Amino acid sequence: MPIFKKVRGMRDFLPEQARMMEYIEGKARRVAEIYGYKEIITPVMEPHELLAAKAGEEVRLRMYAFKDLGGRRVALRPEFTPSVARLVATTLRNEPRPLKLFCLGSLYRYDEPQRGRFREFWQSNFELIGSDKPEADAEIIMLTNSLMKCAGLKNYTFKVGHVGVIRGILSQENLEEKTQNAVMQLMDTMRYEDAFKLVEDAGASEGGVSTLRKLVELKGGEVFETVGKIKECVKGYGLAVDAAENFYEILKLVLESGCRIDVAVDAGFARGLEYYTGIIFEVDAPELDKALAGGGRYNKLIELFGGELTPAVGVAHGIDRMMLVMQKQKTPLKKEGENRVMVIPTKEELMGKALEISQMLREADIPVEVEVMRRKVTKALEDADRRRMDYAIIVGERELKEGAVVLRNLTKREQETVRIGKIVETIKGQA
Amino acid sequence: MPIFKKVRGMRDFLPEQARMMEYIEGKARRVAEIYGYKEIITPVMEPHELLAAKAGEEVRLRMYAFKDLGGRRVALRPEFTPSVARLVATTLRNEPRPLKLFCLGSLYRYDEPQRGRFREFWQSNFELIGSDKPEADAEIIMLTNSLMKCAGLKNYTFKVGHVGVIRGILSQENLEEKTQNAVMQLMDTMRYEDAFKLVEDAGASEGGVSTLRKLVELKGGEVFETVGKIKECVKGYGLAVDAAENFYEILKLVLESGCRIDVAVDAGFARGLEYYTGIIFEVDAPELDKALAGGGRYNKLIELFGGELTPAVGVAHGIDRMMLVMQKQKTPLKKEGENRVMVIPTKEELMGKALEISQMLREADIPVEVEVMRRKVTKALEDADRRRMDYAIIVGERELKEGAVVLRNLTKREQETVRIGKIVETIKGQA
Repeated sequence: MPIFKKVRGMRDFLPEQARMMEYIEGKARRVAEIYGYKEIITPVMEPHELLAAKAGEEVRLRMYAFKDLGGRRVALRPEFTPSVARLVATTLRNEPRPLKLFCLGSLYRYDEPQRGRFREFWQSNFELIGSDKPEADAEIIMLTNSLMKCAGLKNYTFKVGHVGVIRGILSQENLEEKTQNAVMQLMDTMRYEDAFKLVEDAGASEGGVSTLRKLVELKGGEVFETVGKIKECVKGYGLAVDAAENFYEILKLVLESGCRIDVAVDAGFARGLEYYTGIIFEVDAPELDKALAGGGRYNKLIELFGGELTPAVGVAHGIDRMMLVMQKQKTPLKKEGENRVMVIPTKEELMGKALEISQMLREADIPVEVEVMRRKVTKALEDADRRRMDYAIIVGERELKEGAVVLRNLTKREQETVRIGKIVETIKGQA
Repeated sequence: MPIFKKVRGMRDFLPEQARMMEYIEGKARRVAEIYGYKEIITPVMEPHELLAAKAGEEVRLRMYAFKDLGGRRVALRPEFTPSVARLVATTLRNEPRPLKLFCLGSLYRYDEPQRGRFREFWQSNFELIGSDKPEADAEIIMLTNSLMKCAGLKNYTFKVGHVGVIRGILSQENLEEKTQNAVMQLMDTMRYEDAFKLVEDAGASEGGVSTLRKLVELKGGEVFETVGKIKECVKGYGLAVDAAENFYEILKLVLESGCRIDVAVDAGFARGLEYYTGIIFEVDAPELDKALAGGGRYNKLIELFGGELTPAVGVAHGIDRMMLVMQKQKTPLKKEGENRVMVIPTKEELMGKALEISQMLREADIPVEVEVMRRKVTKALEDADRRRMDYAIIVGERELKEGAVVLRNLTKREQETVRIGKIVETIKGQA
């Protein structure tokens, strides 16, 4: 029989890593609860045309797409937003707004595997649908900060930009939407000179191009000062001024909320997905050269999926990327503070009793393992010790006659005879 | 734009259902903790040859199989066991035994959709690897019972059989393994007459066939009485007698543990997967004609995946099937007992303050939503009421001057002015 391998780009998570993933997922679920976002579960497999509809070329060409046995053209989801948009445009069409939705799960892209980029990856995704107000944008940033903070991450920064500022200029310079998208794509990959060239070639005024040149230089510094400079820079482009004002309002609300958050404004910041219309942001940490989270406002997306024109803002958090950074930062997972107990019968005939005691402890919510290898007591104790369990219960004939067992504290290396009815309180009392 | 649909056989889970799924998954994780099983996460996509290696024909032909962009033949996992076996035969090869592993996630089979059977479904999977002792089998049954019980399920029964009893007879009648597998397959689909015919044609003695005939009639009744009859029935077939003795020991341990469990013995019970070698069981509920869980012992499987000969016993629990039964049984999810609060500013300028208060409450772990639609206070209160929130906090200018807000108890329909620093304790005190 051959030794089987896993598929390239796929990962196994061993217990320690799985525990960390589960820890972060638990935090994401808790953030959803404390902010009032409802979880939905959508399929990993969706119609190819749904997933391809609004994905950029880059994502579209890297989807896992195939025909199912019924000849349907399907693909594995590369992001959550199309599935959420599908639901909002159909089943949830008549739900009252705002609609606050949360999803959590695995996604698939055929990218070249590298640190922080795998072909199967995990995200938590929050969408606030139905409000175009700055407090909606502020909330998405705040909850992202809450997640990073309560997972225990350090030294992360929010990079923020506003697609409306750049697009405001391009629109007033009469560039078609298709050209605008191409310009944004170039900016996303930092190819600013190519972007300016394209703007010029598309017939923009000299003033327009020079405004853009000055604009993309505005980054860093004190938040409101930089946003003030942006507003000043785009003077005369009404749409861009409105966008800068919206940018200011959102950031003001975030900082007024008391959210201690490290924000870096970057006027030339763009994100690959075409559907953004307002603020955009990502979260970066020095330990990883990929973003830990990314999001923004997309007011036209639901409409593109067949729904009504619906303002929306959302974010995706890279669960497994957060894990990589937490491993580097040696983030301690909040200790569970649980006593783990090993139950060992001294002989075969006492196994039924050992199982009965294990069941009693589990009903009191105490984690218990039972010696199932029938090793000698000393061997079993060594094993429990090696695995850093807290207690061993030795079920022996002599003590059983008195309705008792030996309770051994493996940390203190002490043991005492305890009546069976008192085991739970003895263990919990010492916790 | 067309209205997009989901792929046939796939499901969306709306918030209420997603909450139930998450609830059951949480219980499965808790059972893993209290029994000492470590979670691992394996990929949804595996090499086709791995998944096809030991799957029966039925599963193999219904896998979602395709070539990835690199030309690799891959498939979506139809069960967890091959992935776990892969890990045990490779990365975890040298881990000390017993190895107790838990996984949770979605699986894929191209079956005809029907109630309780979908093309994407969820399971929790527990495997105890390295022990051939009856307490290992007993533990897998006990933890399955713990999961059903702590999820709140009622009226479920365990149907138990033992593959070793039937195979013991077939082996001593010199039937080849391939023929034995075919006999087991026929028995799994209750085609007993075809099975007996095959045994006869394969050259078994008249006594052998008549023993089998009598054997498969033995079902139901008092557990130990029925197992006693089985032992009596197979007298003369040493391997079958040993198997019946093992069957007895396992059931004795389960019942000695104090596990209150409804067990129906069925000597003619077989399960489709070829790899079972010992006890097999499934959990049934009257509300669904598909099993809620199924498992058993498979001592040769790890070896088949390239590892050493390793005894193992495991179980898979159908998370979404449990959900269907819980919905029918109207199982109440343990109430969260949380206060949900809506924060409403009386005017736009107070939104920053409203966000600050919401943040303070969330840091005290209280779920908060903020009015992000800028509706009038009366409208926002109506909405909070309709959504059965517990409190509304109205942030108004007059109260703010005193460092206070209006706290409205939406259940009692009372309100009071509360200092901002006292909100958390007021809400928690009234919980």
